[in-house]
Amino acid sequence: MSTNLKINPERLWSTLMETAQYGATPKGGVRRLTLSDEDKMVRDWFKTTCEAAGLAVSVDAIGNMFATRPGTDPSAPAIAFGSHLDTQPAGGKFDGILGVLAGLEAMRTLNEAGYETTHPLTLVNWTNEEGARFAPAMMCSGVYAGDLDMATMLAGTDRDGKSFGEELERIGYKGPETVGERRFKAFVELHIEQGPILEAEEKTIGVVTGGQGIVWLDGVITGRDSHAGTTPMPMRRDAMNALAEVALAIEAVALEFGPAGVGTLGEALVLPGSRNTIPGTTTFKADFRHPDAEALTAMEAAFTARCREIADGRKVEIDVTRIWRKDPIAFNSTIVEAVEAAAAANALPARRMISGAGHDAFYISGTCPTGMIFVPCWEGVSHNEEESATEADCGAGAQVLLDALLRLDANPPS
Amino acid sequence: MSTNLKINPERLWSTLMETAQYGATPKGGVRRLTLSDEDKMVRDWFKTTCEAAGLAVSVDAIGNMFATRPGTDPSAPAIAFGSHLDTQPAGGKFDGILGVLAGLEAMRTLNEAGYETTHPLTLVNWTNEEGARFAPAMMCSGVYAGDLDMATMLAGTDRDGKSFGEELERIGYKGPETVGERRFKAFVELHIEQGPILEAEEKTIGVVTGGQGIVWLDGVITGRDSHAGTTPMPMRRDAMNALAEVALAIEAVALEFGPAGVGTLGEALVLPGSRNTIPGTTTFKADFRHPDAEALTAMEAAFTARCREIADGRKVEIDVTRIWRKDPIAFNSTIVEAVEAAAAANALPARRMISGAGHDAFYISGTCPTGMIFVPCWEGVSHNEEESATEADCGAGAQVLLDALLRLDANPPS
Repeated sequence: MSTNLKINPERLWSTLMETAQYGATPKGGVRRLTLSDEDKMVRDWFKTTCEAAGLAVSVDAIGNMFATRPGTDPSAPAIAFGSHLDTQPAGGKFDGILGVLAGLEAMRTLNEAGYETTHPLTLVNWTNEEGARFAPAMMCSGVYAGDLDMATMLAGTDRDGKSFGEELERIGYKGPETVGERRFKAFVELHIEQGPILEAEEKTIGVVTGGQGIVWLDGVITGRDSHAGTTPMPMRRDAMNALAEVALAIEAVALEFGPAGVGTLGEALVLPGSRNTIPGTTTFKADFRHPDAEALTAMEAAFTARCREIADGRKVEIDVTRIWRKDPIAFNSTIVEAVEAAAAANALPARRMISGAGHDAFYISGTCPTGMIFVPCWEGVSHNEEESATEADCGAGAQVLLDALLRLDANPPS
Repeated sequence: MSTNLKINPERLWSTLMETAQYGATPKGGVRRLTLSDEDKMVRDWFKTTCEAAGLAVSVDAIGNMFATRPGTDPSAPAIAFGSHLDTQPAGGKFDGILGVLAGLEAMRTLNEAGYETTHPLTLVNWTNEEGARFAPAMMCSGVYAGDLDMATMLAGTDRDGKSFGEELERIGYKGPETVGERRFKAFVELHIEQGPILEAEEKTIGVVTGGQGIVWLDGVITGRDSHAGTTPMPMRRDAMNALAEVALAIEAVALEFGPAGVGTLGEALVLPGSRNTIPGTTTFKADFRHPDAEALTAMEAAFTARCREIADGRKVEIDVTRIWRKDPIAFNSTIVEAVEAAAAANALPARRMISGAGHDAFYISGTCPTGMIFVPCWEGVSHNEEESATEADCGAGAQVLLDALLRLDANPPS
């Protein structure tokens, strides 16, 4: 199962730069919020371009776009691939977009070679992966998978009070196809890593074996406001210093469960917020992740136990509430192996890794065998106008995508 | 030097409750912002009441009020005492007010006894001690002492854009007397402790030997924003965890310089403030205090050295800027001893202590021999509608004030 088909990295790069015009920002990034005028523009471009490549484009009732190249077996389910074309408010040119345009490049390469696959191939643009304008993230792959309720999502509003459903109709992308009706033989998503590991280890391809489980915890620490000048150190019930110990406990627990575990305190408030008042209240929002479900449970337990010790030691109350948990995801082994073999066949340095960020592929993995491919991005920076990836790495990712798809066409996951 | 003069604690308490009506809040506190209608009401009451007690009331050009009882030596400078009648926006019934009304009670007690002092006695209400409506705090004792510029203070505005000078004229308290023209032989201020020490140690009288020196430091910690899911722990430059170490360093330095030293991190911001983004920037505002100037300098040096270690250890930048330093104040030893002797003569449990908070007496100490007396307040709570002190403790403070004044009248500081 090896072909000589070579994608055209210059053409892929030129297509990336072409779409980056829709919502281009002065700093070289992209602002293409879901269902905005810019989103409509890139969708129109995508539809026209896919049709020009001979693909049949269909849109479902929540705006997911499917561009299909027929296979030789009309009864075979499609092998699908793609990602998303929407961006963060100050996003980059690669997050999501690379996965869609590399799929287009794969289609064009097959067309040029006149190569016929057994299975139909379907390139997908999932609606609203970012969740920046309408929450939550990965919305329409979630609806497709049956994990999110469509009516609720359509009724959701942006900051200006405009609903998702209204905006979807306004830009003309509420399609006729029933959401979730179409199922796939397999799904593969190429994406920038959005982390620093591949770059640091000089690997070109991340063979993604699954996604981390996530636990989100909200905390409130209650001590006592008192005068910074008149309250002796031993008589204080300082919610700031308790917060400091909580932050370091999150880090310590993550290191204890490392290297796979991570833990972050990303938001905190210090109240009442006066230099000469000892803070009586602090709040925090914590994020723990681990690829193993039991380890994730153990991380949460270790952290909450440590919070009790901190509370006792500092005469404060620490209330911790779990507001969300998502179990880890394991991708399909046949797809993981196909990606790994495709990287090896192209002599590209590769490593297996876990996805730290969420992706549409996570929801899709509940509906069909799924896998992902990562390529490096500059210093791991993403969700940022400075987000950057090289032409060579983008091309390598597209090549591995194409080769993996052909391997799966020949030896599909069961 | 001992008299049988006894102040009337019930009358003092009743006067405290009477003035608490001007700006009374539903929760039992007082809202009497400087130069507000409520401030005018209590000032009118104070003037009328002092005049009814035979005192000559004068007002200076920044609203400081002086109520004088003549002495037998017309050439002697007055011995002064008092505090302030303005409050925090959600203040209590005792902060400042006790010092003024205990002085009034002392005057009334002398009147009833027909007791003649050698020195004139002057009861003072300093304008705008709180600084809540017009910054800074201790404004008009500062102008009186020559430490703050009068024109600048008069031009200062509140949130509504009203100037201090306009409001002073509006309520009719821009007096004819030149600010600072009147100087005293001595000044004694009675105040609630605003801290928990006296209550915890079951002492009735705090013999205040001086005021802490204060250093205010502003800090900015710069790491790097990155994705909470994709950035391995060892590759992070987490400004939140650096902030945590900074907070604990402030505490450690204070403990190292304890028990006199204190250190507080009262304000902090965590940016960009997203649960799944490792904070790239944090800011903090720190407050260090110590009664010894050299120790205060050493605390600051120890802290900034520790910040450099934290910055190195966490690959972040920590910029620390000193924005204010106030050297410690030592009160006059003759006055300290007079207060201590007065407490002992009344068999009141007393301890020497440093004032943790700032007071008008600090500025006045630059113009004449000065001292302070503290009485306990409930759980050290102040700047709060729940601020509370007992009738017995208020009465004890007034008694010590009167006795100390008489001791100073007989044996004034040189």
